[in-house]
Amino acid sequence: MSEYASSMNEAAAAPIQLVPGNSLITKTPEDGRLLAVKMARLIIKATQPDAAVREKLRAVYAEDAAMLIAIGQTVATEFATISAANNYWK
Amino acid sequence: MSEYASSMNEAAAAPIQLVPGNSLITKTPEDGRLLAVKMARLIIKATQPDAAVREKLRAVYAEDAAMLIAIGQTVATEFATISAANNYWK
Amino acid sequence: MSEYASSMNEAAAAPIQLVPGNSLITKTPEDGRLLAVKMARLIIKATQPDAAVREKLRAVYAEDAAMLIAIGQTVATEFATISAANNYWK
Amino acid sequence: MSEYASSMNEAAAAPIQLVPGNSLITKTPEDGRLLAVKMARLIIKATQPDAAVREKLRAVYAEDAAMLIAIGQTVATEFATISAANNYWK
Amino acid sequence: MSEYASSMNEAAAAPIQLVPGNSLITKTPEDGRLLAVKMARLIIKATQPDAAVREKLRAVYAEDAAMLIAIGQTVATEFATISAANNYWK
Amino acid sequence: MSEYASSMNEAAAAPIQLVPGNSLITKTPEDGRLLAVKMARLIIKATQPDAAVREKLRAVYAEDAAMLIAIGQTVATEFATISAANNYWK
Repeated sequence: MSEYASSMNEAAAAPIQLVPGNSLITKTPEDGRLLAVKMARLIIKATQPDAAVREKLRAVYAEDAAMLIAIGQTVATEFATISAANNYWK
Repeated sequence: MSEYASSMNEAAAAPIQLVPGNSLITKTPEDGRLLAVKMARLIIKATQPDAAVREKLRAVYAEDAAMLIAIGQTVATEFATISAANNYWK
Repeated sequence: MSEYASSMNEAAAAPIQLVPGNSLITKTPEDGRLLAVKMARLIIKATQPDAAVREKLRAVYAEDAAMLIAIGQTVATEFATISAANNYWK
Repeated sequence: MSEYASSMNEAAAAPIQLVPGNSLITKTPEDGRLLAVKMARLIIKATQPDAAVREKLRAVYAEDAAMLIAIGQTVATEFATISAANNYWK
Repeated sequence: MSEYASSMNEAAAAPIQLVPGNSLITKTPEDGRLLAVKMARLIIKATQPDAAVREKLRAVYAEDAAMLIAIGQTVATEFATISAANNYWK
Repeated sequence: MSEYASSMNEAAAAPIQLVPGNSLITKTPEDGRLLAVKMARLIIKATQPDAAVREKLRAVYAEDAAMLIAIGQTVATEFATISAANNYWK
């Protein structure tokens, strides 16, 4: 078992679902944006399954301008994929 | 409720809208660029809903060359998506 | 008014135009490259409208190898969009 | 032999497979996301084949907000490719 | 005149050409890769037109693993554009 | 002669080939992934042609979590291009 899989299993009996709803298709751009944010967060959750540690780290990045910008970059990349999947909701 | 959702709700009774107008379609490239900037900023706002903290962080990144460049990178990524959505306004 | 909009208005009565000519279409790849550079710089200008501060920061990044590389990354991302808009000038 | 190839061979007689199943095609977005995570991890494994060192580094990045965000950025980029390969599971 | 334009003019009477040959079309992938490297370097040259400073900075990044990796990221992004322009030389 | 070209020529009489086989087309995703790794490494080699320095830097990045993640990001970007070139091996 990979280190990644084992760390996911530490979190709970049920593994973390990395793509909520198991679909990239959303009704609106707003829903697509929310999905991008969730997918970005779920990778962090899978990599660091300990909720207490994540809460501590959240206090760090929420006060750090450089990290907030980096979060924005990751969400932008996830959103690009989701937008293409939805043909840009045209 | 996820940490992300709860932090959004701290900001106000109404959640933050992450895609203004709930559409990626704009009349012109200039409007698309402004949307890219807004969308990048709204992710920061959703992650750090405290306006006073954001104002403090703004003073940090506005004087930091590396962070200004990183903001540009994020806007460029958002703009790539918006440009594709608008078929590059051709 | 958003913080971003208000900071743009500090700079001048007329807001900064973020896409010169309000078009991504250029005659040549060279012109497209120049547009990519300008668009990257205009995001920095909009985020930090004080010319004196920008001039001070310029002295920092022009002597910093890591920041020069990061500027190149941002220009590359803008240029990807402009190139697609122009069907790669084929 | 390149340095990269030789470091892979230190790990084991059999080289590391970098694309599990030698295919980008998956049944679902969730499976595609898991593949993105695995492919990102396998590059790290190939670059640092010593499991004990990787385990030590894991303790570092799992407690570092900036690195967790950076991992998310890499997974997002891998997932963009896998999503396109699967026509976004439409 | 923008700061960027004026800094380019310091370098020489003739402005720097940012896209050698003013075309993204190349005969082979190898030529495309060389063009990607050149275009990445020319942005640095335009931003820092002083050859003596660039030479000093080169000594810095050529011995810095993180910066060498970052250069690779920028070249990869430029190459993605050039590859698409050439329909991947298929 | 550009600084880049001259540094390549220091390494050997024959210049470094940046795209092995001068083609982005591979038989399988696994082969494409190996090509992405090689292309990423060859940019580092061309920028730092001294094998002894590269070996010293390798010892640095192989023990640095942030740099390993950054290498993964670069490989992911190269792989995106190679995957598109091969129509995702569909």
